[in-house]
Amino acid sequence: MEQEFCRPSELNFKNKLHEECGIFGVYSFNSNSKISELCHLGLLALQHRGQESAGMAVSNYNEIKSYKAQGLVNEVFGGEELSKLKLKEAHMVLGHVRYSTGGEDIPENIQPLNVNSSKGKMSLAHNGHLLNALSLRTELENEGSIFHTSVDTEVLAHLLARAEAADIPTAFKEIHSKLKGAYSIIILEGERLIGLRDPKGFRPLVIGKLDDSYIMASETCAFNTLGAEFIREVEPGEMIIIDNDGLKSEFYSNNQHTEQKSLCIFEFIYFARPDSYISGRNVHQVRREIGRMLARDSIVKADIVVPVPDSGVSAALGFAEESGLPYQRGLIRNSYSGRTFILPTQKMRELKVRVKLNPVKEVVSGLRLAVIDDSIVRGTTINSLIKILYKSGAKKIDVYSASPQIVYPCYYGIDTPEQSELIAGDSTVEEIRDMIGADSLTYLSLLGLISAVGIEKDQVCTACFDGDYPIKPGS
Amino acid sequence: MEQEFCRPSELNFKNKLHEECGIFGVYSFNSNSKISELCHLGLLALQHRGQESAGMAVSNYNEIKSYKAQGLVNEVFGGEELSKLKLKEAHMVLGHVRYSTGGEDIPENIQPLNVNSSKGKMSLAHNGHLLNALSLRTELENEGSIFHTSVDTEVLAHLLARAEAADIPTAFKEIHSKLKGAYSIIILEGERLIGLRDPKGFRPLVIGKLDDSYIMASETCAFNTLGAEFIREVEPGEMIIIDNDGLKSEFYSNNQHTEQKSLCIFEFIYFARPDSYISGRNVHQVRREIGRMLARDSIVKADIVVPVPDSGVSAALGFAEESGLPYQRGLIRNSYSGRTFILPTQKMRELKVRVKLNPVKEVVSGLRLAVIDDSIVRGTTINSLIKILYKSGAKKIDVYSASPQIVYPCYYGIDTPEQSELIAGDSTVEEIRDMIGADSLTYLSLLGLISAVGIEKDQVCTACFDGDYPIKPGS
Amino acid sequence: MEQEFCRPSELNFKNKLHEECGIFGVYSFNSNSKISELCHLGLLALQHRGQESAGMAVSNYNEIKSYKAQGLVNEVFGGEELSKLKLKEAHMVLGHVRYSTGGEDIPENIQPLNVNSSKGKMSLAHNGHLLNALSLRTELENEGSIFHTSVDTEVLAHLLARAEAADIPTAFKEIHSKLKGAYSIIILEGERLIGLRDPKGFRPLVIGKLDDSYIMASETCAFNTLGAEFIREVEPGEMIIIDNDGLKSEFYSNNQHTEQKSLCIFEFIYFARPDSYISGRNVHQVRREIGRMLARDSIVKADIVVPVPDSGVSAALGFAEESGLPYQRGLIRNSYSGRTFILPTQKMRELKVRVKLNPVKEVVSGLRLAVIDDSIVRGTTINSLIKILYKSGAKKIDVYSASPQIVYPCYYGIDTPEQSELIAGDSTVEEIRDMIGADSLTYLSLLGLISAVGIEKDQVCTACFDGDYPIKPGS
Amino acid sequence: MEQEFCRPSELNFKNKLHEECGIFGVYSFNSNSKISELCHLGLLALQHRGQESAGMAVSNYNEIKSYKAQGLVNEVFGGEELSKLKLKEAHMVLGHVRYSTGGEDIPENIQPLNVNSSKGKMSLAHNGHLLNALSLRTELENEGSIFHTSVDTEVLAHLLARAEAADIPTAFKEIHSKLKGAYSIIILEGERLIGLRDPKGFRPLVIGKLDDSYIMASETCAFNTLGAEFIREVEPGEMIIIDNDGLKSEFYSNNQHTEQKSLCIFEFIYFARPDSYISGRNVHQVRREIGRMLARDSIVKADIVVPVPDSGVSAALGFAEESGLPYQRGLIRNSYSGRTFILPTQKMRELKVRVKLNPVKEVVSGLRLAVIDDSIVRGTTINSLIKILYKSGAKKIDVYSASPQIVYPCYYGIDTPEQSELIAGDSTVEEIRDMIGADSLTYLSLLGLISAVGIEKDQVCTACFDGDYPIKPGS
Repeated sequence: MEQEFCRPSELNFKNKLHEECGIFGVYSFNSNSKISELCHLGLLALQHRGQESAGMAVSNYNEIKSYKAQGLVNEVFGGEELSKLKLKEAHMVLGHVRYSTGGEDIPENIQPLNVNSSKGKMSLAHNGHLLNALSLRTELENEGSIFHTSVDTEVLAHLLARAEAADIPTAFKEIHSKLKGAYSIIILEGERLIGLRDPKGFRPLVIGKLDDSYIMASETCAFNTLGAEFIREVEPGEMIIIDNDGLKSEFYSNNQHTEQKSLCIFEFIYFARPDSYISGRNVHQVRREIGRMLARDSIVKADIVVPVPDSGVSAALGFAEESGLPYQRGLIRNSYSGRTFILPTQKMRELKVRVKLNPVKEVVSGLRLAVIDDSIVRGTTINSLIKILYKSGAKKIDVYSASPQIVYPCYYGIDTPEQSELIAGDSTVEEIRDMIGADSLTYLSLLGLISAVGIEKDQVCTACFDGDYPIKPGS
Repeated sequence: MEQEFCRPSELNFKNKLHEECGIFGVYSFNSNSKISELCHLGLLALQHRGQESAGMAVSNYNEIKSYKAQGLVNEVFGGEELSKLKLKEAHMVLGHVRYSTGGEDIPENIQPLNVNSSKGKMSLAHNGHLLNALSLRTELENEGSIFHTSVDTEVLAHLLARAEAADIPTAFKEIHSKLKGAYSIIILEGERLIGLRDPKGFRPLVIGKLDDSYIMASETCAFNTLGAEFIREVEPGEMIIIDNDGLKSEFYSNNQHTEQKSLCIFEFIYFARPDSYISGRNVHQVRREIGRMLARDSIVKADIVVPVPDSGVSAALGFAEESGLPYQRGLIRNSYSGRTFILPTQKMRELKVRVKLNPVKEVVSGLRLAVIDDSIVRGTTINSLIKILYKSGAKKIDVYSASPQIVYPCYYGIDTPEQSELIAGDSTVEEIRDMIGADSLTYLSLLGLISAVGIEKDQVCTACFDGDYPIKPGS
Repeated sequence: MEQEFCRPSELNFKNKLHEECGIFGVYSFNSNSKISELCHLGLLALQHRGQESAGMAVSNYNEIKSYKAQGLVNEVFGGEELSKLKLKEAHMVLGHVRYSTGGEDIPENIQPLNVNSSKGKMSLAHNGHLLNALSLRTELENEGSIFHTSVDTEVLAHLLARAEAADIPTAFKEIHSKLKGAYSIIILEGERLIGLRDPKGFRPLVIGKLDDSYIMASETCAFNTLGAEFIREVEPGEMIIIDNDGLKSEFYSNNQHTEQKSLCIFEFIYFARPDSYISGRNVHQVRREIGRMLARDSIVKADIVVPVPDSGVSAALGFAEESGLPYQRGLIRNSYSGRTFILPTQKMRELKVRVKLNPVKEVVSGLRLAVIDDSIVRGTTINSLIKILYKSGAKKIDVYSASPQIVYPCYYGIDTPEQSELIAGDSTVEEIRDMIGADSLTYLSLLGLISAVGIEKDQVCTACFDGDYPIKPGS
Repeated sequence: MEQEFCRPSELNFKNKLHEECGIFGVYSFNSNSKISELCHLGLLALQHRGQESAGMAVSNYNEIKSYKAQGLVNEVFGGEELSKLKLKEAHMVLGHVRYSTGGEDIPENIQPLNVNSSKGKMSLAHNGHLLNALSLRTELENEGSIFHTSVDTEVLAHLLARAEAADIPTAFKEIHSKLKGAYSIIILEGERLIGLRDPKGFRPLVIGKLDDSYIMASETCAFNTLGAEFIREVEPGEMIIIDNDGLKSEFYSNNQHTEQKSLCIFEFIYFARPDSYISGRNVHQVRREIGRMLARDSIVKADIVVPVPDSGVSAALGFAEESGLPYQRGLIRNSYSGRTFILPTQKMRELKVRVKLNPVKEVVSGLRLAVIDDSIVRGTTINSLIKILYKSGAKKIDVYSASPQIVYPCYYGIDTPEQSELIAGDSTVEEIRDMIGADSLTYLSLLGLISAVGIEKDQVCTACFDGDYPIKPGS
């Protein structure tokens, strides 16, 4: 019996697509001795966007102090470390949470990235993915650049440093056309905090206000935790500059009005926290509508509706509302499993699920269940869950996926398995149903999804479902 | 602006009563090289019963190896430490999770307690509280005993060591009449694993089976995680002895048949995990029935039912079912807050709540809410929640408590605030309603609670509600 | 090529006998907020007496706060931990450094030992060994005592707790006759600091004064570090009580005047620091005299005198003085090797030596060397050194041991290898010379040693050389 | 009474000049699974050249794995970390120990520096200092380079990356003329290990052989520890390339034959370990000759010669030989003080000395002492020592410094205090004598030093004594 090492990401996301990063920055007009505590809380609220490392950089305009480490936000910043990040007259802070893939899990890659250049010191936090990072990197290396990390944020830092413009905002306008891909970025430099969102707006970025401070964050849920006011989203192609003169906006993209938007639709399905707002829509409400849509499109014969908690809860509520079936708590989630540990491999797959989810026999026994999950990626978790539910006496199990079949990899900052590992990569719904062992399997249609989200198809990225890539990889 | 240090217990339980311990033991008929991994998973499933320290003792009959430390189960056992607990030919393991109060938060107090005596080495794990621990301790000290810890488990160890009987089971029968209070105990010693439950059965203790192993645990949810079979409860006054000959049962209490039982009714309300079974009842179903009872006894005028997650979810479902009102997800819980960290004190109280719970504006805005919480202890959390919900646009807030007013301290292993800190300690329902800022406040009646649980009043302990103490403190 | 784990004790002492403990206590007449820092420095000065763990207990009369951990003094107390040991109005502190043998290397065994009893809280620090610890322990266990540790200090704590006398000093007088063996002990309890030395005075214990504080320590070198004044030794059979009334002395032993003293002669040879005073003699000067004696008794034909640093330096200086040969630095010691680490086993033995000691080729090449080591225990280090010196060009190597052949194990607190591992356990000098590969080998005679130390033979313990045990083991 | 934080560098070197780095690299012709252990031992032997951080990079030609952290070598690599540095088929390793000044004590600065460029991955370890690092850096930044660290090694990495040549050796030849200053560098890249020494040869660099491996190291003492054979020095202006074809040498400097050499003479006085060889001279023997020279030039009237251990020992031996006075151990060194800790400030200065050095009263009392120190930097240590020696009864104290007055700062890789902090910066010998409180003070003359070292004046750097800078700073 061998052992297997469980990372939080495996427990929580192995069978999920997942976001690679959350970013958070504060600019305070008056110096604020508690600014790193604000960032700590903000990152805590964004923890669902990255659980493997966390980092922070504090600035008093003259000096930038940074601390970064592997672990959950509270493991990195819950103890003494926060006190080491104190700077007199601190005005700005920048934070990052990150999910990282195995091979490049080196300390140097933890963000924010802190560099010096002829334009001074700057700290960068990035959510997204540059498709042409490798070719830009090769080009830069050929021009003599050296790289310390393997994150594409460093490519951006080089481009900014090499730009002719003397200041970072102008430099970004000078080089932005070289960047192909998804990026929501916050840059802390000099006496400025800069927020940038790519012209297609793949990943979210929002602006808030708390007392005498402006905040930028990946999601509005960070404002909820701080009691801050949500001002508005950073628009695709927009650059926000916050300095002592206040908040300024500029659209750096040349074709701002013609550029087709490509907001990641999966933010609505799974990534974002239910209390967040994206594109003016509350995520929970969108998911509820998705659940309703799912029920509306199906002939539902189950006795009860059972969500896979927590990510399936909102859709299951909508599904129950629409179908008129009772919403029941057939699965209980252990909220204390979110940290790396070692599992004996025997019965590994089932154990991984059982550590996190357990059925309530009294609820499911003897009944036909409509089990609602937000998505099915590799199919292993739902397969284990179905087995466990049958063992607990479920009579029949109808599985409903609150998203269409995931068929194509994402190139815009989401970690997707190889296409061959995607259960829908090469199989029909019937085949998938058999593989996961359900009595029936229903996927939300892409049209249903778009209609539930309520954004025009040509304003969202649905590439993982239909392969319609807004920016062609490899091009 | 000062700082305040947040322990997980504060974030999760400050406004809750809370269990002080979870215990878990395995006896394997064949040696099992993965026995410490089983215990790790078992403790993980019992983590909700104690978040401040964790410990384990492994035995191969000849040797006992132990590791204990402050922190969550995965912080203590998620890394290298588990590998240091390996023993060749290991047959038994004993584990403990603990919540500890500030003053006695010393490493020596972390369980299991490992001692040597003329009866050999033994390791003890205790859930409960001995009312006469102090007088027994003084008596033992006067007879020359020395104490290394301040936990009452050490009192029991002394009594067992001083008993005339040569073996631990007989020794326990000899001394048990000296013990006044609540105790569910697992003792690992020699080639035996012993389970004990006090004659009144205050705290739960259950028996399970996995492959060639017997397991004892505080709750059946630990069996769920391991995929083990639930056999039965240890009865009040029963001693379970598991050794190479199998599992034996014995009733040590003299008045086994006349002794009135006093199962802690709060296990049903809050402590136990919803998928656990206590006294033959599924905890989730009991809570659902509690919710129904609560709705049945009230005139409900709200628009929607909103649970305080996660502990209010089951009752809210029952409440919605009975009232016919829609169950809605008006509050979102951040599942990544379970670890000590430092909070800036400004707006402290609200921040503590916001780090863990956030409203969904779209759900609650403009509506009258029936907010269902499992219990109200000091009233500060619900007070903050109500403020936050109003800020999010709630029109009216009717609060329903799924337990009666908590008026009296517990002496049987539950950490309760001073009576003066209990919001119901000295106030009428109207006064409490005003203090928490709700439009209306409804408590479940004690009769309603007993009826929902379905156990005779004289078989449960309800002292925290009515002051009817099964064993008088101080006597 | 396997790996081997090197503990500091191995690097420094594997081929040495070594002391098991150093103890240090301070009583301050006025409360002293820096008392734990004093103890830290005192323990640092006694680090040579124990490198595997360190502990401290601070008292303000009402409360005792303690911290203990594995590691060197600065690893345990060099960081944040010292600040956690702060007590308001602290008056007393007790510290301990320990060398521990593998099997019992459990955290519970780290001293000082902190216990509660009917006589209140007390903290004990022990240097020495009770020969009858096991039989006392069995006796105590048969009377119902339980043991948390495997150190004999806990036996003493039990005896004190069980004594009829209400106070610790009287209790000690009541029970001292039960103790057989070597003990220098400091007890911190109530409002008193108590120092005890066994009637034969095996191990040292000294009294000093610094400002408004009395200090007790294993060696006077601790006073040197603090700039404290050395008052006097604690006499064999003496109990020192320091409280608010000052320092009191009492001789608890019944046969104080007839009892034969047995000061460990090895303190002079190796254990004590050269700047310490023992029995009125400066350790360095005694070692110098030992070196002179060694040269006086031999026909020395070497070209130069080479010490094995640091422990052979003082004797080598005396040897050079007496022989008239030049003292030369033929071996260099790396002072940065004092911490556990992993060594590849290939060429293991030589590597272990080379990590710590390296020859100076220019000094030794072509010459006949008189190599002076303080003692030869298992012979492996000197064997490796001789090989290395030959490789560096030494022509001939005459080895001189500044102590007689070590033939018998010590039962009084010194860790000696099994007799079979002692190179002199069963071999003639000629055989040893051949085993270590020297051209000649000369041991100091026991008479020469005693004469150099200048204490009557019947006042010192020389059991490791002649088997003349002052207290018979097993009796 | 405030507290002050003691770094090892303060205890050991505050009153010393000190080396900033030690470097060590191994190239093994066959893959070697223990290559990181070799590096660990090599760094341990070079620990005296840097105590604040340590790092290692291992290569199997395809991949470079690196680990770096603050702390002593055994703190960084004594535990589990070494095992994480394993690479299958490892052929090369590069290590670094570093002393760092306060302000730039950031993790990014720990070496070796690992970077990627168009020329592949490389790892650099540097001992020395580039005088024009800042201007090169500004130039590079102006050309668009970004910097992650504040060490001048990164400047070199940029220059190599930007060079036109495709391979690193050719690139170095292309850019070397831009480098002004002192550098002994080892570069691990591709399938090569490259050693470089600046044309003036300020800092040492040596080549050794062990089994099937070549080794390069700052000092030969690393070969002693490993039992490796010392081959030769890397010459000033030489580039050593070790790859599968063996070891190649090349002189990259254009004016190899005319360039005046400038070996740092302080390596002989203090930096190097006594068993090392520099420029064909054994360091211990040079120091002994320095001591002789010092005695020869003076009228010595003392009773005994007392070294300040360990750095003054070799010179004191020579001094005693020449003067005919007895060499005595008047000061004892505590070898366990080498790690950061907190000291109470009261009597701070004396305490700092006493923690490390203590007088032997019996040796010094009543006598006139010739105290031999290797050098006097700020004068505070010798001042404290003199006070302590007087307290111990010394009658008169003649201080001899084994180096001339240190008057000028070093710009070639040695951390020197501000000139105003140098006791000889602006004072006569008489004034210094009075400031340190000695009865007499004698400095070795520069001519005497050069004569003792035995290298022509124009082949060594003596700038700290005479301000004769081989490369002008600021030029």
